[in-house]
Amino acid sequence: MSQQNPPFYSDEQTVPETPDPGSAPKSWSRTSMVGRRQPRVDGYELVSGKAVFPSDISLPGMLYGSVLRSPHPNAIVKNLDTRAAEQMPGVRAILTGKNPEANIVWSYPGDVKSMLFESHCRFEGEAIAAVAAENSYQAGDALRAIKVEFEVLPATVDELKALQAGAPRIHDGGNRTKPPESYQRGEVSRGFTQADVILEHTYRTECEIHTPLERHGCVAKWNRDRLTVWQSTQGVYRIQSQVSSILGMPLSKVRIIGQYMGGGFGSKLQADKETIIAALLAKKTGRPVKLFMSREETFIAAGNRPPTNMRLKAGVKKDGTLTALDFTCVATGGAYPAGGTSGVDWQIKDLYQCPNVRTELSDVYTNACPSRPFRAPGHPQGSWALEQMMDALAEEIGMDPVALRLKNIPAVSQARSGNPPYTSTGLRQCLIEGAKSFGWREARRAIASSDKDRNWRKGVGVASGTWVAGAGGPPSTIIVKLFPDGSVNLNMGASDIGTGTRTVMALVVSEELGVRPDLIDIDNADTATTQYATPSGGSKTVPTESPAVRAAAIHVKQQLLAMAAEELKEKAASLTMKGGTILSLNDPSKKIKVTDVAGLKKQGIIVGIGYRNPNPANRATNPFAAQFCEVEVNIKTGEVRILRFLSANDSGRVMSRLTYDSQVIGGITMGIGFAMMEARILDRNQTGKIVSGNWHDYKIPTAMDVPADIVSVPIDLPDNEANTTGAKGLGEPVTIPTAAVIANAIYNATGIRLASTPVSPVMLRRALAAKAKETSQKDELK
Amino acid sequence: MSQQNPPFYSDEQTVPETPDPGSAPKSWSRTSMVGRRQPRVDGYELVSGKAVFPSDISLPGMLYGSVLRSPHPNAIVKNLDTRAAEQMPGVRAILTGKNPEANIVWSYPGDVKSMLFESHCRFEGEAIAAVAAENSYQAGDALRAIKVEFEVLPATVDELKALQAGAPRIHDGGNRTKPPESYQRGEVSRGFTQADVILEHTYRTECEIHTPLERHGCVAKWNRDRLTVWQSTQGVYRIQSQVSSILGMPLSKVRIIGQYMGGGFGSKLQADKETIIAALLAKKTGRPVKLFMSREETFIAAGNRPPTNMRLKAGVKKDGTLTALDFTCVATGGAYPAGGTSGVDWQIKDLYQCPNVRTELSDVYTNACPSRPFRAPGHPQGSWALEQMMDALAEEIGMDPVALRLKNIPAVSQARSGNPPYTSTGLRQCLIEGAKSFGWREARRAIASSDKDRNWRKGVGVASGTWVAGAGGPPSTIIVKLFPDGSVNLNMGASDIGTGTRTVMALVVSEELGVRPDLIDIDNADTATTQYATPSGGSKTVPTESPAVRAAAIHVKQQLLAMAAEELKEKAASLTMKGGTILSLNDPSKKIKVTDVAGLKKQGIIVGIGYRNPNPANRATNPFAAQFCEVEVNIKTGEVRILRFLSANDSGRVMSRLTYDSQVIGGITMGIGFAMMEARILDRNQTGKIVSGNWHDYKIPTAMDVPADIVSVPIDLPDNEANTTGAKGLGEPVTIPTAAVIANAIYNATGIRLASTPVSPVMLRRALAAKAKETSQKDELK
Repeated sequence: MSQQNPPFYSDEQTVPETPDPGSAPKSWSRTSMVGRRQPRVDGYELVSGKAVFPSDISLPGMLYGSVLRSPHPNAIVKNLDTRAAEQMPGVRAILTGKNPEANIVWSYPGDVKSMLFESHCRFEGEAIAAVAAENSYQAGDALRAIKVEFEVLPATVDELKALQAGAPRIHDGGNRTKPPESYQRGEVSRGFTQADVILEHTYRTECEIHTPLERHGCVAKWNRDRLTVWQSTQGVYRIQSQVSSILGMPLSKVRIIGQYMGGGFGSKLQADKETIIAALLAKKTGRPVKLFMSREETFIAAGNRPPTNMRLKAGVKKDGTLTALDFTCVATGGAYPAGGTSGVDWQIKDLYQCPNVRTELSDVYTNACPSRPFRAPGHPQGSWALEQMMDALAEEIGMDPVALRLKNIPAVSQARSGNPPYTSTGLRQCLIEGAKSFGWREARRAIASSDKDRNWRKGVGVASGTWVAGAGGPPSTIIVKLFPDGSVNLNMGASDIGTGTRTVMALVVSEELGVRPDLIDIDNADTATTQYATPSGGSKTVPTESPAVRAAAIHVKQQLLAMAAEELKEKAASLTMKGGTILSLNDPSKKIKVTDVAGLKKQGIIVGIGYRNPNPANRATNPFAAQFCEVEVNIKTGEVRILRFLSANDSGRVMSRLTYDSQVIGGITMGIGFAMMEARILDRNQTGKIVSGNWHDYKIPTAMDVPADIVSVPIDLPDNEANTTGAKGLGEPVTIPTAAVIANAIYNATGIRLASTPVSPVMLRRALAAKAKETSQKDELK
Repeated sequence: MSQQNPPFYSDEQTVPETPDPGSAPKSWSRTSMVGRRQPRVDGYELVSGKAVFPSDISLPGMLYGSVLRSPHPNAIVKNLDTRAAEQMPGVRAILTGKNPEANIVWSYPGDVKSMLFESHCRFEGEAIAAVAAENSYQAGDALRAIKVEFEVLPATVDELKALQAGAPRIHDGGNRTKPPESYQRGEVSRGFTQADVILEHTYRTECEIHTPLERHGCVAKWNRDRLTVWQSTQGVYRIQSQVSSILGMPLSKVRIIGQYMGGGFGSKLQADKETIIAALLAKKTGRPVKLFMSREETFIAAGNRPPTNMRLKAGVKKDGTLTALDFTCVATGGAYPAGGTSGVDWQIKDLYQCPNVRTELSDVYTNACPSRPFRAPGHPQGSWALEQMMDALAEEIGMDPVALRLKNIPAVSQARSGNPPYTSTGLRQCLIEGAKSFGWREARRAIASSDKDRNWRKGVGVASGTWVAGAGGPPSTIIVKLFPDGSVNLNMGASDIGTGTRTVMALVVSEELGVRPDLIDIDNADTATTQYATPSGGSKTVPTESPAVRAAAIHVKQQLLAMAAEELKEKAASLTMKGGTILSLNDPSKKIKVTDVAGLKKQGIIVGIGYRNPNPANRATNPFAAQFCEVEVNIKTGEVRILRFLSANDSGRVMSRLTYDSQVIGGITMGIGFAMMEARILDRNQTGKIVSGNWHDYKIPTAMDVPADIVSVPIDLPDNEANTTGAKGLGEPVTIPTAAVIANAIYNATGIRLASTPVSPVMLRRALAAKAKETSQKDELK
């Protein structure tokens, strides 16, 4: 493309020969390794406990850090007395805002700042002080010995109340993080006049907590002016950049290592305050410091998916043509600018063809923990509104919900300026193939004709979705080393956040070099020893890294073929590789095993380097999904059983079938949690404090909540225009429509439209009772 | 040169633009950083103890391995009973040759093989069994509990006796490792007829032990089928290759890490038996195993510099022209083929111009520990003979010893086929500049006219030397990463064996990119995460790696300038870098700070890759040295004080002045040990066992033995024909002539020609007494 490829340089600065650009295909037509059901290449490490996660790190002389947090959602620290704590056994350092080195401004995306240790605590969990002690118990005891005098202020934890006149101001500038964000195309009022049916509904989604299995934290260690941090993170280079900037250190003196990490879902894209605190404590004590949050701390201080209050008005013609969508949302990222409304309107703006769309997003402050990106930020929230609305519209016009969606499939991205065409759009296939595999029509028919007197009533639902990103893109650099015995080392900066990135990349190398995936050693996620990568998140890791990995493998192959060509007295362009052998296409007698190539033996290794090229200009690359599920609802108790689920995904080429399916299962599981049980509950009436701040009170799905019958239907459409592996993002689209699918299935079973997540039996029972009363009243009136 | 430079490949396989080969100079004319007195970039780590050496590694659950060794130089293991040892507390595994996994053939360079655990022990220290236990004391106790029944055989530890008829055969094929190795050019008999003076002498050098500060050993850890070894080694990739081959494992599954190492001097170029034993013990127990030799074990089982018995006959004309050199040597590499005579004749063959040269080397087996390469293998031994002979010849023809050497400086390598010219020859400058700085003539004159009745007599000596290698050469790959704040990470496979390699490479990067050396983070010597390198040894690390480092830095610079060119709207070829700023040569107003280049910020990093190109064809690249010293000898006691030393070296460009001087001091120190005190003494008359097997009985120089006055005179002649940094090897030439210099100075003081190392006061006193007796007898006869 337009980017100049920098040439190799030897020490002699020889002009490199022009390579034959035709010698490597631009895209794979067929693959033998990529797309396989390959068990994870790091499966043994992960299940045996041999993999060393940052939270497993234990260094000689290591201290344990712990953070004192505000117990109040809104309070001013009037006095902080650490004298007793300093005398506690095992205590080696105490840090507060009074320590000059801790006098650090903490930046959020907007203009509002806080301090590393803030004296005006605007949420429960705000850091006030920190301790390093010989063990975590002593650290905890010392925290309890710090005497804090608070001036407790009234808290505002309800985002709608925050906008009311006279509400206490969370920041001096008021309770809006910024003016309402508006988007408009066409003219919604005109759109509504063209509609045959107009519906309007209010929706709410509750705040969800990431709760990754490995908690948030790090181990920090100094070597004079060099800092090494083992951090549980999605992106070591981003952490390096932040730590370097906050501590005013050269990047070369900050090393972040995070080879394994136990989940993040967007909450581990950033350096935590804890990262900086651990570094400061380690500096102060001259010893390594381990600082991992407790599970309870992660509930109040490690981010969340913002709760939303949405209103959607939609117009449709009788033939299913959408004429207008009018959407407003009030949401909160908590006490600091943290993107409370980010991404909430993307489904409304871009999923279906609609000429007249207006959205308005109000992001407000509340006295709550700042949110962080959470798997498809904003998208499941918007989908909760849009996809229930689509279901309602379909019913109103008497159209099948799948048919209504098929009617409105766009060819271009309408929300992007210039309306760029998609590099590939598999939404149609997702809906058609998904419905077919699910047995949609049959199921709908069976339910329609089922016995309505049973307490357990079945229902099926559908919803689709798109993810705003997923194309990947530069920069990325990858190095592949081919050893003389044909085995390989792959060096990559990106984190494998549990999605199977290592396995995908091994398959890509295996495809190009014919080496068994288990013979590929992978080193990743270390700013000192591995290559540059952007954080793993946004469903962009595979589409970003896999083309660079492929380029590096091809680069190895070309060097190897050049060596073989010399030895076989054949042109490199006439050679091909099959298994471990290099063959001439012209002369079958000319062949040589990779392990017999003398040049490779002599050189000891071949090093290949690969870059990620820019994405095609004026094109949109988005993944699409359609999901289907069947539920069974007990209309007496409100209990919901999710019987089966199906997800049909267009995420470009299927790179690794087993990890692909794992992603689908994981996304649906997370969506079930979002729809059915997960809710950070704040005490809105009195204290403003969290009342579901642990895994006992905050429920996430267990094996009993997830159906055994989850079917993955990959729409295997390699997106060869997007990049050279044809992959698009998968991680986020698989969770976007899930909650709405369940809501639509529950409606199909019960006739109850759900306004709010989570759908508890209590809430559903109440709605069913109300509906029963209404029906009986109607019956009475008849 | 002829090597094709492989191009970069992005994932799009775009054809790279042809770079401007003129944009980087082929060689530096001036340097501002390279050559500086730069303190070691890793100095803090090294002196503070923060650097983690392999012997510092401690892993959770780690066991301690120890090896049972033969106490006899020649014995057959008739029975081995481990039952009692197995019951000892803390013992977790015992390995003997009976364990199938330990049934491993151990290869030496020749045809003669042994087993990992050998039943016919041919030297004291041969491995018989090994134990892994919870701690090293329990391991030692368990070893002592192993019952071994030996059949003790007569031992042959004298290399000359080994050749006598009827000597016990050490291997079935006899006691010669191979037929005597002969070299001839011209016709020595004709050469001697042309000589005015012919001298013939016999010389012996004693066996020297490496005794690096960090002992030999490793920590081995398995992760299913992947093995990680932290090894104290000079070359991780060579160890990887050996371990992989011996254990039959893919290279990608063997990771060797040796970031820091505490000295090797050639004895750590190879995988030890201990490496394999540690791996087997770790596999058997499922736990990491640390296996480091005791200091005493390193004396009997970690190699040595072979003892030599040399005879040299030399002819010279009155004008100083050498006419013939005839050299024979009998030496031993111990019980296995280990290069007992390697390199011994190189000085004789190649240092001075001489048309008629014959050498014959007899390498014999003895019941002694196999030797290993030792700093300039064979060279100090040969120098001991040749340089004393040169001194004697000079005296015989009444010529100054420096003048005799200057008379015979060659322009080509005479010992190599085709007699290739040297890329640079600084021997003349070494002798002239060295003599001048030393005050050679003045010192000689003062000594000649000094009071001969004093007990303490002064003397000065000179000797020169050349090292057979030192050109460096491919393969080497280096990666340099430039961070957006201008700091740098350097990734290199080579070990820094204590010589300051890291500092040299930081200066090279600093020279090209203008970044402060302390802002360059260096990661090296890890087969998984760093680039390919051959072992650090043979004085080739700097000339091998520095050109590749420079190429990688230039590659970074070119990418950076291309970015800046776009932003400044200027041609990249018109840009230059100064400090942290990029400037236009045409338009002074066009400039930008490196840290302001938007492309760098956006990309997050620039990755540069550099390779070491082949050496010039048909050229020899060798370093040269001339050394001078002054001694004071007590003619009553034989005590020798070394008063001052000077080394003038032609090692190409001076890359880093402080580490250069450190090498000089280290080489001279080691040479003093070789000349004056170091000797592995075997009991030749009875047991054949070592009698100097520890640092009490085997003396190495201390601060008291080394003069404070050591002067380094670098002949700074960048060898731009050899490579793009102009560096030649330094580590070995600085120790080659040292012992001979001392011998010549002692002769100058006493008139005693020394035959054998080490020059102990006892030996010297005896020679002085004999000489006094002879003189008085002569006086009586008068």
